[in-house]
Amino acid sequence: MEFLRNCWYMAGWSEELPAGALLSRTFLEQPVVLFRRQDGAPVALLDRCPHRVAPLSRGTLAGDTLRCIYHGLRFDAHGRCVENPHGAIPAKASVPAFPMAERDGVLWIWMGTPDAADTARVPDLGHMARVPATAQSRGAMPSACHYQLIVDNVADLSHVEYLHATTLGGGAFVENRPVVSEQGTEVVIELRSQGQPAPPVYDRFLPQPGVPVDFVNRVTWYPAGLLKLDISVTPMGAPPEQGLRTFNAHIVTPETRTSSHYWYWLTREYRQDDEDMTRLRHALMTRVFVEEDKPVIEAQQRLLGTADLFDAQPVLLATDTGSIRIRRVLKQLLAQEGGPAA
Amino acid sequence: MEFLRNCWYMAGWSEELPAGALLSRTFLEQPVVLFRRQDGAPVALLDRCPHRVAPLSRGTLAGDTLRCIYHGLRFDAHGRCVENPHGAIPAKASVPAFPMAERDGVLWIWMGTPDAADTARVPDLGHMARVPATAQSRGAMPSACHYQLIVDNVADLSHVEYLHATTLGGGAFVENRPVVSEQGTEVVIELRSQGQPAPPVYDRFLPQPGVPVDFVNRVTWYPAGLLKLDISVTPMGAPPEQGLRTFNAHIVTPETRTSSHYWYWLTREYRQDDEDMTRLRHALMTRVFVEEDKPVIEAQQRLLGTADLFDAQPVLLATDTGSIRIRRVLKQLLAQEGGPAA
Amino acid sequence: MEFLRNCWYMAGWSEELPAGALLSRTFLEQPVVLFRRQDGAPVALLDRCPHRVAPLSRGTLAGDTLRCIYHGLRFDAHGRCVENPHGAIPAKASVPAFPMAERDGVLWIWMGTPDAADTARVPDLGHMARVPATAQSRGAMPSACHYQLIVDNVADLSHVEYLHATTLGGGAFVENRPVVSEQGTEVVIELRSQGQPAPPVYDRFLPQPGVPVDFVNRVTWYPAGLLKLDISVTPMGAPPEQGLRTFNAHIVTPETRTSSHYWYWLTREYRQDDEDMTRLRHALMTRVFVEEDKPVIEAQQRLLGTADLFDAQPVLLATDTGSIRIRRVLKQLLAQEGGPAA
Repeated sequence: MEFLRNCWYMAGWSEELPAGALLSRTFLEQPVVLFRRQDGAPVALLDRCPHRVAPLSRGTLAGDTLRCIYHGLRFDAHGRCVENPHGAIPAKASVPAFPMAERDGVLWIWMGTPDAADTARVPDLGHMARVPATAQSRGAMPSACHYQLIVDNVADLSHVEYLHATTLGGGAFVENRPVVSEQGTEVVIELRSQGQPAPPVYDRFLPQPGVPVDFVNRVTWYPAGLLKLDISVTPMGAPPEQGLRTFNAHIVTPETRTSSHYWYWLTREYRQDDEDMTRLRHALMTRVFVEEDKPVIEAQQRLLGTADLFDAQPVLLATDTGSIRIRRVLKQLLAQEGGPAA
Repeated sequence: MEFLRNCWYMAGWSEELPAGALLSRTFLEQPVVLFRRQDGAPVALLDRCPHRVAPLSRGTLAGDTLRCIYHGLRFDAHGRCVENPHGAIPAKASVPAFPMAERDGVLWIWMGTPDAADTARVPDLGHMARVPATAQSRGAMPSACHYQLIVDNVADLSHVEYLHATTLGGGAFVENRPVVSEQGTEVVIELRSQGQPAPPVYDRFLPQPGVPVDFVNRVTWYPAGLLKLDISVTPMGAPPEQGLRTFNAHIVTPETRTSSHYWYWLTREYRQDDEDMTRLRHALMTRVFVEEDKPVIEAQQRLLGTADLFDAQPVLLATDTGSIRIRRVLKQLLAQEGGPAA
Repeated sequence: MEFLRNCWYMAGWSEELPAGALLSRTFLEQPVVLFRRQDGAPVALLDRCPHRVAPLSRGTLAGDTLRCIYHGLRFDAHGRCVENPHGAIPAKASVPAFPMAERDGVLWIWMGTPDAADTARVPDLGHMARVPATAQSRGAMPSACHYQLIVDNVADLSHVEYLHATTLGGGAFVENRPVVSEQGTEVVIELRSQGQPAPPVYDRFLPQPGVPVDFVNRVTWYPAGLLKLDISVTPMGAPPEQGLRTFNAHIVTPETRTSSHYWYWLTREYRQDDEDMTRLRHALMTRVFVEEDKPVIEAQQRLLGTADLFDAQPVLLATDTGSIRIRRVLKQLLAQEGGPAA
């Protein structure tokens, strides 16, 4: 399957791009250089000088412009050449620019048709950004796999009971089936367990451990690489404010067909002042992602080679409903962007 | 040339697969997971879950069944899915199983048509297994080359006088020509020197060093990767029991087109209680294989790239008769297994 | 673009090939083994035995002949098999030999039609070889790029003002345009600045620092990989002997399509007894090449992938005239060698 181009992909955390810095990253197989204009606005250009394909990210910033290190051509934030030290500026001397947005501490890039970039569609993670810093943590896990394998992983939480049996599991993900729905181009996958005790990882923080709970995991997928994961654990019959709630995001951006940028963001609504708990939760989840998810996902990629998972004609289970819907929406969106953006 | 599939390939030594272990190896470009049933019988399944292509070798054994670590599908020793925790078992939820056999401390796998697996054809290495442990040694040398280059190496022992000039050589391999014969699908290559002193590596252990000997090297190739090498050094005119005899095996299994599993097994009939001699012989032969054979064979592979040696139109010598016959038999066997096993 | 074959390529420095040595190098994607005959003449054979493609460079020299380590075939300096220990010499048992020449401490190899090898065309670097050893230095910088990207680098010295701004720059390379001319198949690119102060790297060594100078950089390209670089810095109006002159060579030989052998040689006509200066100049230039040129050139290669720079339709500037002319001459020469040498 092609990469969807007309959507906002995460390019990094805001603080990864301080003023004056040049950051080189590959998105959707294209090398990109990121920097900030003097007013702070993020800029993304193809990281390849149109003269002799030198990487612009090795160049030097001059105000809102970037000078190529090799022979000195200078480009503005729109990619237009504004100086050729060796003569007139050639008509074709420009470099593609990619629209960017910044919101809630996240940098977003639009790798598709620039005119189609819609700032109204920049993902809203304000509910997480507003959580006190003492109850937030963020991480990155570059992964040697197609981004869709990571989306599949989060979209089917039944894996928690097996892959994460000793860390996050507790039974709720097997005994119940996900309910999948669509909201426009978003896919919502809700897995709910009622009347069972909470998994140990939550149970110990309930007012009264061992009580049966209403345990809700809601994954919302936004094309193409954003997954919000809202979790709530509430004693049966109790009001929501007596429960434990976490808001999380898994954000993945294709680097190449076999490698991905993967960022995660964890926030919670309970014990927000407890920084030790934040550190412990972050350490636990990082271990889960790095030691449990990553080896299996990267092994999937090695076994698939260059094939897409669904080309490999996998056996499908009830728990695959979410990822099947996501691929269906992706196909529709890809069909829509068809010619012009290809 | 394609890999021959309908034959027994060595999968490992018996002790590499203790009870409860999961061993992941690639044979003929297919990932395979090995384990033992509770009755000890070895089992081989494709190391790739039919659900989401996770490696089954990361899973967990439960009795004679193997549970996938990712979403919990469980398979029996025949590869049939016997449990889907998320609903009914899909009709297609099975994984290919490969017949296995175990004999003389060696695990054998059949990568071809399962119905064609003939346990009567499992190679017999009993003459070596029966040698006292004090006069046996075994080793492994994973090699970055097509398995046929290793077969060629053993099938043409004339290389001993050049590649192993200072370690095993003595002249007998140049002055005499091999006699090649076929026994069914086996190829026997015998190199015999009569009336010359033995190579130094044997001469020192004769009752009377320096005497002329009857020196016989017999290589027997069994399709596709087993080479037995029987060596005898007998003073001229003396009865066989006054000579030195060694029984050896070189066993190679394709991993990919450019890498091979390579095992060797050394036994002898003289000085069987002398463990120091066993250690010294093993150290010598390992050095010979690792420092002398391996660099040249792997360089052949690099120079050949993806071409087969015989596609490169090599100049042929009298000493190539054995490897030419082997390839001819291989071609016949490949033609026979033609369609169904491809 | 194909590699030009009918020309002399540098194979190494003379002292890299002492008597009795076997040196294995890849030129134009062909493995080559180099050694010397007993009379000292350098010899180059394809590093691949015609019998079983073993690397001849692992063999042993016997007088003017080379014996393959694997099965003992022996070849003379013309590549003819002169001994087969296993029987008659097969008619086809020969290995390609490549003409070689040695001049001024440099080994040259002819990878094209042997009969076309013209010793009269062996490059003359005598003006550098005659410089006292105390004022010479030489280095090597293997580079992960197509050789043409290195030729382009030297052919367009305007990059000095950007890539080497803090080490070699001074302004002269931007304010003036190169004058390009051809002499037979050679391309001369001259960049001249008159009346400005010399770049700091030279200015400090003038009799009177800060005076305006006549600054001449003359690059002469010889097909396909030799670039002579003569530099002179003379106070305006003064006779040449009051100026500073350096003679330098950048010599590049294709190894593969994405890797190159790159040698450089620095000599000067001033302060020829000052060995400290020689060391400092060598250290400075090596740092410039390794830390400034190499990262950009290798990044160009990565960004180009397998495409040729000019297939990528680069924007061209006035400073590209030299490299455009060089490619034009190369195309003519390639067209000439057309069929027979392909």
